Amino acid sequence: MKLDDELALAMRLADAAGAAIRPHFRSGLLSERKPDASPVTIADRAAEEAMRRILKAEVPRDGVIGEEYGEEQGGSNRTWVLDPIDGTVSFLAGRPIFGTLIALLVDGWPVLGVIDQPILGERWVGASGRVTTFNGMEVRTRACPTLDQATLATTGPQYFDDHEGEHFMSLAAKTDHKRMMMGGDCYNYGLLASGNLDLICEAGLQLHDWAALVPVVEGAGGTMCDWNGEPLHQGSDGHVLAIGDPARLEDVVEAMACHH
Amino acid sequence: MKLDDELALAMRLADAAGAAIRPHFRSGLLSERKPDASPVTIADRAAEEAMRRILKAEVPRDGVIGEEYGEEQGGSNRTWVLDPIDGTVSFLAGRPIFGTLIALLVDGWPVLGVIDQPILGERWVGASGRVTTFNGMEVRTRACPTLDQATLATTGPQYFDDHEGEHFMSLAAKTDHKRMMMGGDCYNYGLLASGNLDLICEAGLQLHDWAALVPVVEGAGGTMCDWNGEPLHQGSDGHVLAIGDPARLEDVVEAMACHH
Repeated sequence: MKLDDELALAMRLADAAGAAIRPHFRSGLLSERKPDASPVTIADRAAEEAMRRILKAEVPRDGVIGEEYGEEQGGSNRTWVLDPIDGTVSFLAGRPIFGTLIALLVDGWPVLGVIDQPILGERWVGASGRVTTFNGMEVRTRACPTLDQATLATTGPQYFDDHEGEHFMSLAAKTDHKRMMMGGDCYNYGLLASGNLDLICEAGLQLHDWAALVPVVEGAGGTMCDWNGEPLHQGSDGHVLAIGDPARLEDVVEAMACHH
Repeated sequence: MKLDDELALAMRLADAAGAAIRPHFRSGLLSERKPDASPVTIADRAAEEAMRRILKAEVPRDGVIGEEYGEEQGGSNRTWVLDPIDGTVSFLAGRPIFGTLIALLVDGWPVLGVIDQPILGERWVGASGRVTTFNGMEVRTRACPTLDQATLATTGPQYFDDHEGEHFMSLAAKTDHKRMMMGGDCYNYGLLASGNLDLICEAGLQLHDWAALVPVVEGAGGTMCDWNGEPLHQGSDGHVLAIGDPARLEDVVEAMACHH
């Protein structure tokens, strides 16, 4: 399958997920609770089922890893990674800044990524060797000449343990902390790709949380890595940095390391 | 002037502010810095100027207090309180969950409030003795039978000092902390009025930040107060609670007070 065909398939997956999600937004539906008490909704499951049906029909040999229904091994070197609703807390509170995440891994590496916001009709698409697009228009990250001008975002301090929180605060203190922004999940990575913010620092991210973000951020000129500046991989520790201007990579890693 | 006329005037103010703001959203405009380094934009000022022009033409005897241009004393018992862009950090990062806030104080008390999101075309309107509306439809806060089921929101921990942060954490620990939501500014109060979340706890809010929220939240059945459960007033200390289900007021105030 060629990249254009894979991109077209990814668009159909995003369309199907959005159609499954939209009727439930702000609908007051009851939600279940997973054993770990994180919120999961009817919409989450319906969206993943819709995407899996399409993949099964169109690329039955490809593997699938989904946030809701786990891993289905395939017979090819390709794996689709799905997170139907990234930002479930925002979704449940009626905030239209959650997203559907779709990634295609080839030999374990994400070569295609989609961040789709189905309520606002906003979609970022990244693919190896191409410039990232936002609703079809090419976007690029912005320059960030010095770290103290950087706008930093994270979904929330409640996702850091004490030790992680210290590293985060060490970074935050060297950025433009008056513009630090909380909340947002995957939506922030789209905004970083569009040149609206400079840095994102998060912990506890699993493959389905970050795989789709890599092609979007890197196709816009940014870089993604772990907190040591190393490339992300399937065994990563969940510590994720997105840096709009790769010239700041060393500053960021240094700022995170040197807490007291 | 009758309440219906005042509401109609408030709608024209919100329309004018939105028209001034929309062209600048995600436009990559340069922003100035205030002495306190909080971000302020061309859009912020243009929106407040547009609203002040309308007030000067239509209700020249009323006072005006605006976030950008300060206080203009009036010759009546009425004062309009304007915050053209509440959530400047979100605005600058391209996140459409900031809002224009418009309140009318009569004898110092907010009798009318508007939260307007001009990018999404979303508007909450509250007025004394009326049910709050969201885009013209009546909305109500939701019941919250016990505090441990409550979804709590706040714009970010960076707005608390250490002492305030301890009180906040003491409350957070007694709510459904897996659903705690960061970021959002005034937009969260609209969502609370619509029954999508239960509690908001913030510090450092000035009159222009909270005045418009009171009629919206209370007209939907919720309550707003300071951290001791006392009504907000112009000399309040900036500690604000919004509680969707007033039956939880005592639990919330107790949870905030008893930190160790």
